Amino acid sequence: LSESQPRELADRVEINDLLIDYCRYIDRAELGSLVALFTENCVVEYGPGAGFSSRGRAVLERDLQRVWRFRRTAHHLSNIQIHFKGMDHASVVSSVMAWHESPDRSTALLYGRYDDDIIRTRAGWRISRRKLTNVGGDPVFDEIFYPGERAPAPAGWSWRPPNP
Amino acid sequence: LSESQPRELADRVEINDLLIDYCRYIDRAELGSLVALFTENCVVEYGPGAGFSSRGRAVLERDLQRVWRFRRTAHHLSNIQIHFKGMDHASVVSSVMAWHESPDRSTALLYGRYDDDIIRTRAGWRISRRKLTNVGGDPVFDEIFYPGERAPAPAGWSWRPPNP
Amino acid sequence: LSESQPRELADRVEINDLLIDYCRYIDRAELGSLVALFTENCVVEYGPGAGFSSRGRAVLERDLQRVWRFRRTAHHLSNIQIHFKGMDHASVVSSVMAWHESPDRSTALLYGRYDDDIIRTRAGWRISRRKLTNVGGDPVFDEIFYPGERAPAPAGWSWRPPNP
Repeated sequence: LSESQPRELADRVEINDLLIDYCRYIDRAELGSLVALFTENCVVEYGPGAGFSSRGRAVLERDLQRVWRFRRTAHHLSNIQIHFKGMDHASVVSSVMAWHESPDRSTALLYGRYDDDIIRTRAGWRISRRKLTNVGGDPVFDEIFYPGERAPAPAGWSWRPPNP
Repeated sequence: LSESQPRELADRVEINDLLIDYCRYIDRAELGSLVALFTENCVVEYGPGAGFSSRGRAVLERDLQRVWRFRRTAHHLSNIQIHFKGMDHASVVSSVMAWHESPDRSTALLYGRYDDDIIRTRAGWRISRRKLTNVGGDPVFDEIFYPGERAPAPAGWSWRPPNP
Repeated sequence: LSESQPRELADRVEINDLLIDYCRYIDRAELGSLVALFTENCVVEYGPGAGFSSRGRAVLERDLQRVWRFRRTAHHLSNIQIHFKGMDHASVVSSVMAWHESPDRSTALLYGRYDDDIIRTRAGWRISRRKLTNVGGDPVFDEIFYPGERAPAPAGWSWRPPNP
């Protein structure tokens, strides 16, 4: 066990709280607080379309005004894995269940994956790069977010229930 | 790093397990075990209606008999943030995805937020105050649970896709 | 606080990452990587039917080819509780929200519980036994997975809203 473990464990708590703050602020539509979780020159990629790839806090804050197309949202984070790359940098993967309610109260769900670079700044840990991929969810999101990766079935595979 | 870190980290594990025990016991409808997670004089507020604001373990156990209106439930907790207020008190926020299945097998989902006061007792950490808010979910829950907070769009805002 | 706490906390991180790797690999349909998370002679029980109870990595890898009946899946893990049974063995309970999308894009949800035995091997922590139970979810899963447990209402119980 390394001498640096106590620090690493404190860092894990801070990074966990940072990722959760993102969920809370987006659901509360507090965009100023939300973008303060990112570095000034962050790169945030949700998808290929205009407004879904934002460079810098100011642009991100403008682009995220799209949250108000929804009546409400709920972002639930899980599957958080933190890999440290030296003292001041972590590569983090997590899963988000993002529920979206439109003004007419129809809903759409996204099961997404965040790939983040998170760095230690003087003000604490901040997200410097985030990329979202669409692991699953309603078809309305097919074209909006980057698709996830999944291995294809082997050639010739077909489903056959095994013998009892 | 403070000297008290090892204790704090052990406390984080215990508090995490306490919150999860709530989810398990409610889904298993084990109300005696469930209310033992609370202090004797706990205050638990789910909503404004009769029976949804319970003071003390005995009243809580009686009020929670409403779980049997459902055929099954599933409570999945995420977004746990623990803030210590001294050695023996923590203020904890978490998110719950609560799935409810009625006897006719129709279902309703709540995306809720728990705001908890959790205190160290001789028997371990216990919930002394819990308030649930309704961040999102099916309309059936609109009037039952306290509404969440969300910032409104700025005056004059209207959605316009950004230029490509 | 025990001397072994730093090791235990490192073990908690490793076990957490192991359980999350299961979710990622199954959603990516990377079956070789998936079964490497288990011990060589693992016992994995999803349900009573043929092919849903697998002994050993090789059989598990064959049986899990059923993932390709789905277009996509998303497994989100929460409610993780780790109980150590000595230095090299942990009994772990967790909850999974498992979303399944068929080729016709219909979907089915399972709210499951994993009961795992996890042991320390030379290569790290591995799952030696996993049992899934069906706490909730769509009726299509009723017969496939083992049912969860839930206490019945007391004799004579009937729902009556409390007096205001």
